[in-house]
Amino acid sequence: MKLITLAHGNGGEENNELIEGIFYKYLKNDYLKKSEDASLIEGGKLAFTTDSFTISPLFFSGGDIGKLSVCGTCNDLAMMGAKPKYVTLAMIIEEGFEVSVLDEIVKSIKKELEICGAVVVAGDTKVVPRGSVDRLFINTSGVGVMQLEGISASNLAVGDAIVVSRDIGTHGAAIYANREGIDITSTLKSDCASLWPMVEALKDARIKPKEMRDATRGGLAAVLNEWAKASNICIEIDEEKIPVCSEVKGICELLGFEPSALANEGTFVLALDPNDVDEAIKVLKTFSQNKMCSCIGKVTDEYTKKVVLSSEWGTKRFLDMPTGELLPRIC
Amino acid sequence: MKLITLAHGNGGEENNELIEGIFYKYLKNDYLKKSEDASLIEGGKLAFTTDSFTISPLFFSGGDIGKLSVCGTCNDLAMMGAKPKYVTLAMIIEEGFEVSVLDEIVKSIKKELEICGAVVVAGDTKVVPRGSVDRLFINTSGVGVMQLEGISASNLAVGDAIVVSRDIGTHGAAIYANREGIDITSTLKSDCASLWPMVEALKDARIKPKEMRDATRGGLAAVLNEWAKASNICIEIDEEKIPVCSEVKGICELLGFEPSALANEGTFVLALDPNDVDEAIKVLKTFSQNKMCSCIGKVTDEYTKKVVLSSEWGTKRFLDMPTGELLPRIC
Repeated sequence: MKLITLAHGNGGEENNELIEGIFYKYLKNDYLKKSEDASLIEGGKLAFTTDSFTISPLFFSGGDIGKLSVCGTCNDLAMMGAKPKYVTLAMIIEEGFEVSVLDEIVKSIKKELEICGAVVVAGDTKVVPRGSVDRLFINTSGVGVMQLEGISASNLAVGDAIVVSRDIGTHGAAIYANREGIDITSTLKSDCASLWPMVEALKDARIKPKEMRDATRGGLAAVLNEWAKASNICIEIDEEKIPVCSEVKGICELLGFEPSALANEGTFVLALDPNDVDEAIKVLKTFSQNKMCSCIGKVTDEYTKKVVLSSEWGTKRFLDMPTGELLPRIC
Repeated sequence: MKLITLAHGNGGEENNELIEGIFYKYLKNDYLKKSEDASLIEGGKLAFTTDSFTISPLFFSGGDIGKLSVCGTCNDLAMMGAKPKYVTLAMIIEEGFEVSVLDEIVKSIKKELEICGAVVVAGDTKVVPRGSVDRLFINTSGVGVMQLEGISASNLAVGDAIVVSRDIGTHGAAIYANREGIDITSTLKSDCASLWPMVEALKDARIKPKEMRDATRGGLAAVLNEWAKASNICIEIDEEKIPVCSEVKGICELLGFEPSALANEGTFVLALDPNDVDEAIKVLKTFSQNKMCSCIGKVTDEYTKKVVLSSEWGTKRFLDMPTGELLPRIC
């Protein structure tokens, strides 16, 4: 490992190597946990997280970098059971960027913040000379107030059910289609959305997920593999139960992508007590985008630290942590 | 204002226009105050801030982007009277960046965090294709615990003394010299440093500054102008009392820069009760870099919202908010 490659930012295997090899070497402490989306601070009362957004194009079917920059950070808080409350907004803008486009993006930030119930409390603007950055990068950091205690990647136990909130892979597929000018964008939209309202609905229904995670970079495959390792268990998934819409299936068949490795920005996976599954799916389906919400598998002890995919013909194979980088600048 | 210019990121007049015209239009709320370095959250118990770092070159006399990214954000907290506690670290790395250089930078982050007494609690790494970013940008956000209450840019009153912690302009001058290969770098070093230890020393000496601000982008001139506006007062400065080292004087004379508009990264300005001045200077001078700490002026009501420079010959002129951008990517 002498030079940083695109794969080092993939949310998968190489990303983990970089984090372990460089960042943890110097910065490791009890707060910093690779397998969680945000850190608990102030005695566990607050959660704190950060995300940078380098997506290209800036506007895509179903969203834009502004909406994404709010969803991305607020979803990391929501997945820890924290209600997003305070957000910081830092923009790095290329000289010559259109003010009218910036206006659209900030308007979109405002709209999404209202959905999350959060406010921007501090900001920073840097303008760099032409060629030093490709148009616009945004960083948001967020602090949320803990509402659901005890959610953790190390909580999974044999018998737990695995539920996915909606059909997977639409963000990755939509960005790919937008970039390549594939003409199915009229129906295919990124799932980009704020997840806190869904978590709040689960809380109001007195459902306590053992773990939740939005399947961003690295997709469903990365989430399940991280959980299997963190909880030292096996996750068995019925391949045909993984919800995938026909447009995403089409793009994946055309290009040889795995839907389970595609990025999502408003899709989350839950580990639940099996008795909570029916009610959780009912609650999640009250949100229009979650029509395909379903239980896709369960926790076993067959192959610890592994994810197993079972096909409808009874064959089994491991679903590995994604490697390489098919779609840089997906978020 | 149709296109973003470098001046929109200068920490001065145009920067304010962008903030008022776009960001405040959509995002304004009671937490977000342009004239403060960080926002008070959770009933005033915590402070929260963010900063992105795009400095070029990545290594400079007196520091590097890693050290700077800790100092910049932790100093914003310290200036609000908050002890830096939790930091998030988000890196955007260009494909092909050297892992050994990244290692050096993260090592430097660790070292500076120890000086501040803060820890990294969450991180994010994005890798973008060659040409999408110039090598490495870093964002840090920070949460600090309030230790000194009531510090605010709107606190200044007639009679208050204005103190600057050390000689000004070394960061801007050092970066300029490094970029241009001017051979005085053996003696001229950026002031880049963590300010919390100095604020803590003032607190331990029971000195209560009315306001503190590190003079980053826009320099001393921007800080004093923001204070004059926020407190609706006049600040009168004795020009010859502003401490400037001979190397910075030389660069400024050569190039026509004003030392008071040059960026600093470890130099702060204080507004104090005049009875506290001698003790504050004594405390600040216990830090080796603050040998030139001095009282440079006072608050009056002569020209409200204005900063006046008096020369040793008795002439007076206004010191305006800096405009334009002499040194992009200074931080």
